[in-house]
Amino acid sequence: ILVTETEAQKDQQLNCLVQLSNPNVATMKEDILYHFNLSTGTHDFPAMFGDVKFVCVGGSPSRMKTFIKYIGAELGLDRPGVDYPNICVGTDRYAMYKVGPVLSISHGMGIPSISIMLHELIKLLYHARCSNVTVIRIGTSGGIGLKPGSVVITRQALDACFKPEFEQIVLGKRVVRSTDLDEQLVLELMQCSVELSEFPTVVGNTMCTLDFYEGQARLDGALCSYTEEDKQAYLQAAYAAGIRNIEMESLAFAAICRACGLPAAVVCVAYLDRLEGDQISSPHEVLAEYEQRPQRLVAYFIKKRLGKAHVSS
Amino acid sequence: ILVTETEAQKDQQLNCLVQLSNPNVATMKEDILYHFNLSTGTHDFPAMFGDVKFVCVGGSPSRMKTFIKYIGAELGLDRPGVDYPNICVGTDRYAMYKVGPVLSISHGMGIPSISIMLHELIKLLYHARCSNVTVIRIGTSGGIGLKPGSVVITRQALDACFKPEFEQIVLGKRVVRSTDLDEQLVLELMQCSVELSEFPTVVGNTMCTLDFYEGQARLDGALCSYTEEDKQAYLQAAYAAGIRNIEMESLAFAAICRACGLPAAVVCVAYLDRLEGDQISSPHEVLAEYEQRPQRLVAYFIKKRLGKAHVSS
Repeated sequence: ILVTETEAQKDQQLNCLVQLSNPNVATMKEDILYHFNLSTGTHDFPAMFGDVKFVCVGGSPSRMKTFIKYIGAELGLDRPGVDYPNICVGTDRYAMYKVGPVLSISHGMGIPSISIMLHELIKLLYHARCSNVTVIRIGTSGGIGLKPGSVVITRQALDACFKPEFEQIVLGKRVVRSTDLDEQLVLELMQCSVELSEFPTVVGNTMCTLDFYEGQARLDGALCSYTEEDKQAYLQAAYAAGIRNIEMESLAFAAICRACGLPAAVVCVAYLDRLEGDQISSPHEVLAEYEQRPQRLVAYFIKKRLGKAHVSS
Repeated sequence: ILVTETEAQKDQQLNCLVQLSNPNVATMKEDILYHFNLSTGTHDFPAMFGDVKFVCVGGSPSRMKTFIKYIGAELGLDRPGVDYPNICVGTDRYAMYKVGPVLSISHGMGIPSISIMLHELIKLLYHARCSNVTVIRIGTSGGIGLKPGSVVITRQALDACFKPEFEQIVLGKRVVRSTDLDEQLVLELMQCSVELSEFPTVVGNTMCTLDFYEGQARLDGALCSYTEEDKQAYLQAAYAAGIRNIEMESLAFAAICRACGLPAAVVCVAYLDRLEGDQISSPHEVLAEYEQRPQRLVAYFIKKRLGKAHVSS
């Protein structure tokens, strides 16, 4: 029985190590993560990243720097006068910051940009032999039928036809992956929002598009060949499909994390209600406060998890 | 006959003004170009941008800053000690620089990111009442059957199934646009390369994918479910379809510029030969020199055009 328990424990630990869905990487002498400007040949990944338990990602590099300063202070890990250096020096494709068990990385805009980042991030976590890692996207979005400033925790990521599918072309052939997110994480994050009680938060589906203008039924792009009525009909149909916000990364984020067994969540603030308009016209300071909301929620979640788990930093 | 000529001239001038394919924008009181942090309500677009004749775009903000310094010097428009400020201050989504008739803008990685930029760029040129504008992407790519460092001028942008089509989902329905580029520009650029005679340059088709790893048949991503043989077969088929390099923006770039009547060209350097490998492992200084090649070619083209046309700066 003792042997069985040890096997089970070993199994569990193995299951929680970050895994790749690619046998080739284990046989490579050196792995250059080109868009991070990091390489296993020149950097000690286990020493640099082995303690990472939470990875937070978002579009804008400056927002992800703001977040690392904020979470560092919240976790009591900041030191006065000490800045957080960008780990991805020598490239401006992405920016990466770390404090204790939290890694914060920018991913740019759109599915291709976040896909490159995720492939290299998951390889980074694998090379560093990280275990029990949770990945959360803290983003911005357009809301549907929501008060501006509302936060949406994504139940399911849907494509522009309202399907929970991430379609890719691999070697010229169509490959479709599931975009299911971690249900337990959704519940935990919603509970955190109730406890925080600082801003309206809903659980809803998130539509992910390849374009911000025509792809999101905006009337104000350089190209537009439909009417206000067509737009309203599409957005109302999206609302009826349970969609509460629209952004441009969640399909790939959900599918790639899931394919590698990483629990993942998407938490986005809605800058505007798309049923009311297309332009993001709120004053800068209002948008800046909205932008902090997913960060506050996720920081609260991380603190709560660490308080429970006593993870070392 | 005089009247007819004047009408024709007026027509021609009208035809050369930057046009939108969206009647709504002309009726808007204010147009906020959110991702540029510019607005017609707060900025004088004709004064800031009215003289723009060449727009050069590329993925990396620092490369686009390097380019504006280079073209400024080449055109004799630089002033010692005077830097080029980023016109998109207050946002880190894109960076924009201007010198004389040349605008240089970063677009991030992938179709969605360049699409947002192009919608807002074309609206900017429209509001500024620009005329006779040429748009050129100066990028990086992976080559197929080319010596690393070779420059590819794109004849046609093809998708991952080797079709010259840009497919979008608009209001939940499939919309397909042509990705034909300006043939005259291809010839002019190739002639410039011959005159420069500094590096190998070819005219070829460019494959544009939504992903850098699986989407480009790489064996070294976090996910991979095919063999080296599968990869070679796919890349050889691409080569047979006239494809000489692979990148991630040309489909949307070609389609959106074409839909708005803007002559456009794609000039990319190939960092590696994908038939030989997947990782970008050349030393930094070698890649840095490769990266300058499209800039040198396009700067020569701009100088030649300006020398002919005597466009004021």
